Amino acid sequence: MAADIAEQPEGFARLLDGPHADAIAEVAAQIAARRPRNVLFVGRGTSDHAALYGAYLTEIRLGLPVASASPSAITLYGARPDFTDSLVIGVSQSGGSPDLTGVLSTARETGALTLAVTNNPESPLARAAELSVDVAAGHERAVAATKSYTAELLALLVLIEGIRAGDGRLPESERAALAALPGLAEAALADRTADDLAQRYRFAPHMVTTGRGFGYPTAREAALKLMETSYVPTLAFSGADLLHGPLAMTDADVPVLAVVGEGPGGRAMQDVITRLGEQRADVVTIGATDVPGAAGRLAVPAVDERYSPLLDILPLQKLALALALARGEDPDAPRGLKKVTSTL
Amino acid sequence: MAADIAEQPEGFARLLDGPHADAIAEVAAQIAARRPRNVLFVGRGTSDHAALYGAYLTEIRLGLPVASASPSAITLYGARPDFTDSLVIGVSQSGGSPDLTGVLSTARETGALTLAVTNNPESPLARAAELSVDVAAGHERAVAATKSYTAELLALLVLIEGIRAGDGRLPESERAALAALPGLAEAALADRTADDLAQRYRFAPHMVTTGRGFGYPTAREAALKLMETSYVPTLAFSGADLLHGPLAMTDADVPVLAVVGEGPGGRAMQDVITRLGEQRADVVTIGATDVPGAAGRLAVPAVDERYSPLLDILPLQKLALALALARGEDPDAPRGLKKVTSTL
Repeated sequence: MAADIAEQPEGFARLLDGPHADAIAEVAAQIAARRPRNVLFVGRGTSDHAALYGAYLTEIRLGLPVASASPSAITLYGARPDFTDSLVIGVSQSGGSPDLTGVLSTARETGALTLAVTNNPESPLARAAELSVDVAAGHERAVAATKSYTAELLALLVLIEGIRAGDGRLPESERAALAALPGLAEAALADRTADDLAQRYRFAPHMVTTGRGFGYPTAREAALKLMETSYVPTLAFSGADLLHGPLAMTDADVPVLAVVGEGPGGRAMQDVITRLGEQRADVVTIGATDVPGAAGRLAVPAVDERYSPLLDILPLQKLALALALARGEDPDAPRGLKKVTSTL
Repeated sequence: MAADIAEQPEGFARLLDGPHADAIAEVAAQIAARRPRNVLFVGRGTSDHAALYGAYLTEIRLGLPVASASPSAITLYGARPDFTDSLVIGVSQSGGSPDLTGVLSTARETGALTLAVTNNPESPLARAAELSVDVAAGHERAVAATKSYTAELLALLVLIEGIRAGDGRLPESERAALAALPGLAEAALADRTADDLAQRYRFAPHMVTTGRGFGYPTAREAALKLMETSYVPTLAFSGADLLHGPLAMTDADVPVLAVVGEGPGGRAMQDVITRLGEQRADVVTIGATDVPGAAGRLAVPAVDERYSPLLDILPLQKLALALALARGEDPDAPRGLKKVTSTL
């Protein structure tokens, strides 16, 4: 898991240049030419969190409504929604889960443009879809997905910005911002605060993660990593949903990890952190600047919030790894899990 | 909270007959005439779980793709998705949260047919929308929503079946099935197993709820009730997502409440319960029949899975109430919460 985590800057660089970037640009141009009227994402687990990032990008950058069908409506209940003019994107590290392949097959039959975003271009999911993007993260050794997650995020970002451009070619300003990401990821991974923080959470019975907007996929993914590797039950909430009820269960014994980026999502978290403070919750933020009322911060470089999911998750992956080791667990082989999860 | 819970059968009967039913039929007919091509739901907290039920119904019964935009994309990031030919449904007990009203206003401006489903027909949300459905649950006294939740579920069911019918008038078989619900709800509420179960969970540090398909909204809502009233951190997962990672953190000390209905969603849970058994998790099911490997069951009447969310939540509401009392908390006034939550 440590090796997978460390390889992420290199993976970013690989995806941003050369044949992989060209292939994504080509797919983006084909999608733009087909002018989908809405986009549906399907994914499970970590890949569902990447899909959530894709959904925000689609709404905000493409101005298209996002559908987020539950696979079970189609695979269990036989729903056949009319997907004419829809783009249906399946996101999966392995490309091997039958429910996602089932959704893409049904969508393709009912008129959708289908795209698989996977780390295995030879997978059933990639074969079921009309178009395919290889996230090119390389073989992932640990069961808990890390480098395949950020590769999915980056592939979706490059793809969606390419669709926005129309011909798949990114504007120069966008290319410059993306080109900085490998170096910024190196910087984020060099920080060692996560290792110290793992000691602090050694005996936490459970944890909470929260974020809004572009910070929310990170909160979801961090919770999953903590559960997969450290077995700490971790509840993830959008900052808004947290105030609608779950806030009641927070107190001084509940550690909260709050993603606070440099943008609208991060600013909307200020009120959440104030309310958590009133409950005496123990808040540590993930972001580029200190937040009043927080007990600590996992530092990440300041970037436009749109890029922040690619960096904010890095210290949280390190935290999950360090906490698993501190608790005497084996982060590379979580109990009860296999690398490919097969659900119908 | 006990009084709110007890009033649900009466609320069902009120909504199924007379002026409220006629009003929903009228709205359904108007929507059917406009032939929306997709449906977007927005809601927060409990109402988001009702919206999730509406999403399953829409996909399965209407064959329409469901969009589930995050309010923050619109209210925080200024996204203006093209909602032409879309039906946008805001679900809210109070109808008072600015973010939902903002989404409906934006959607209406950009060409959507908009509908508010609320317990307050004079609310800002109802005024912002072109169409409005009153769920007619009556004044809800407790902060934790119970009768307004099931009223939202039933209103969405009647509405969507009315759209399916085309003229808002339900087929006779559907009317008969619905007419049985108040009596079945009485029967579900008469069972006292939830009170005993509360003693068993008195010292649980956290809990897990899970379900698939039509069982998933119930799992989500049960988790929220437990957190709001008993302050027990409770993690809700679709049965499929549970296998994609979170399964690792389950062991003999993690109580699991699993919704197992009479249909495809319930059948798909069998594998989940087997896997939970391998982890030695303590599983109690909610359903009409015993499940091998489960330690106990909250009994509900057997119904088609499509109706099960209206009944399955009832013993879980009672459990949340009883557990709050067993832990010495005040379920009527949870710490840190108000009845109307205002998020931007």
